[in-house]
Amino acid sequence: MIKIIGFDADDTLWINEPYYRDMEHKIGIMLSEYLPLEKVSEKLFEIEMKNLKLFGYGAKGFTLSILEAAVEISGGQLTGAQTTEILTLGKNLLTTPIEILPGVENVLQQIKDKYMLVVITKGDLVDQQNKLERSGLDHYFDHIEIVSDKQPVHYSRLIDQLQIKPEEFLMIGNSLKSDVLPVLEVGANAIHVPYHTTWQHEMQVENHDFEYLTLQAIDELLPVLEKK
Amino acid sequence: MIKIIGFDADDTLWINEPYYRDMEHKIGIMLSEYLPLEKVSEKLFEIEMKNLKLFGYGAKGFTLSILEAAVEISGGQLTGAQTTEILTLGKNLLTTPIEILPGVENVLQQIKDKYMLVVITKGDLVDQQNKLERSGLDHYFDHIEIVSDKQPVHYSRLIDQLQIKPEEFLMIGNSLKSDVLPVLEVGANAIHVPYHTTWQHEMQVENHDFEYLTLQAIDELLPVLEKK
Repeated sequence: MIKIIGFDADDTLWINEPYYRDMEHKIGIMLSEYLPLEKVSEKLFEIEMKNLKLFGYGAKGFTLSILEAAVEISGGQLTGAQTTEILTLGKNLLTTPIEILPGVENVLQQIKDKYMLVVITKGDLVDQQNKLERSGLDHYFDHIEIVSDKQPVHYSRLIDQLQIKPEEFLMIGNSLKSDVLPVLEVGANAIHVPYHTTWQHEMQVENHDFEYLTLQAIDELLPVLEKK
Repeated sequence: MIKIIGFDADDTLWINEPYYRDMEHKIGIMLSEYLPLEKVSEKLFEIEMKNLKLFGYGAKGFTLSILEAAVEISGGQLTGAQTTEILTLGKNLLTTPIEILPGVENVLQQIKDKYMLVVITKGDLVDQQNKLERSGLDHYFDHIEIVSDKQPVHYSRLIDQLQIKPEEFLMIGNSLKSDVLPVLEVGANAIHVPYHTTWQHEMQVENHDFEYLTLQAIDELLPVLEKK
C-alpha cells in the first residue's frame, strides 16, 4: 500500500535544533550587557517570526534575523567584531558535523529496497543537500524535496507530483505541526517520532481530532511497516 | 516533440540583476571612505564566490556575503547603523516590485495550453515563489523547480523526475552558462534569450562546440515553436 516514504531531515534524520539553540545562547551572552538572556531569545523569536514570510526557513534567514535583533537590542552599538562573530556562528550552522540519530541508518538500510525514499524539508536547499552529503545517507534517498512550508496544500501538491495516491504516501518526522497533522489532513499517512528539543514555532499546534502513531525511537518503524 | 518548457526566472521572466548591481553600488558608496568603488565590487565578488558552496545562490546569501565584505573592508569599523542599512537593502531585494520583461506574458499565454510550463531557478525557494506570486504569472506554471546549481547533472536529474525524454524538454533562459550549455549537454533543447545585464559569475563560460538559437526578444519564441 505504501509506495513512497518521506522523511523530515532536521531532528528526524540528524541532530539540528540544539545547534540553533546553542547559537542563540551564545548571542544571548554576547548581548547580556543590554538585555537578560531570556529577553534576547524572546526578541529574536519575535523578529524571526516577522521575517518568516520573507526569508523562509533555514540557517541563512536565521542568521539575518539574529543580526537584525542584535543591532536593535544593542541600540545600534553592535560592533564590527560582534557582526563578524554572528556571521561566523551562522556559517558554523552550515558546517556542523552531522550526528545521525540512533537507529536511522539501520531503518533506511532495511526499507530502501521496498519503498522509494524522499527527504522532505523546509530548510535551505543547499544547506540540506550539503548535510545529506556529509551524513553519508544520500544514497538511500531518491531526491530531496524542498517545500516553502509544510501546510496541507504543500503535501497534496507534492503527492500529485510524485504521481501516487495520498494513501500510498507515508511521512515520518519529529514535528507534529509540520510532519504529521498536515499529512493526515490530506488523507496520507504519518508517524510521529518526537525529538527532545523542538523549536518554539513548531510547538504551536492547533486543536485537532486526528489519531496518529507516536514512536519512541525510529527503530520501531520496522515492525509497523511490516503490518502495513 | 517538446512536452515541457522550463523557464529560468531572474532576467528571463522579470528584471533582477540590476537590483543586485544597484545594491552593490550603494554598498560601494557606503564604504567609499575605505576603498574605491570598483575595489569594493571586486572584494564582494571574491567573498561571494568563497561562500557560494556554503550559501548557494539567492538574496539571503548575497546579503550575508555583503555584510562579511563590509566588516572586512571597514577594518571592523562597520557601525550598527550601516549593518541595519545593509540588512534593509537585502530585504528590499526580497520585496522589489516585479517588472515583467516585455513579451513574456504574451508568450506564456500563447503556449500555456500546448506545453507544461515549469520555472527552473537556482535562487531561494521562498524568494522565487514570492516573486512569481507578485508577478501574477504563477497561474501559467505547473510548479517551481529549485535546483542548487545548473550543471548537466542537475538537468538530467530533473528530466528524469519529470518522466520525459531529454529531447522532449526545452529550456529558455538568459544565461548561456546555466540555462543553455548544460541543457544541450544532456541532449535536451535550449534557447538563449540574453539580457543586457549579466552577473560576472554567469559570464564565465568554457569553450564549447554547441550550436544554439539566440533570440533578441522572447516574442520570437512563438514562430520557433511552431516549427518544432
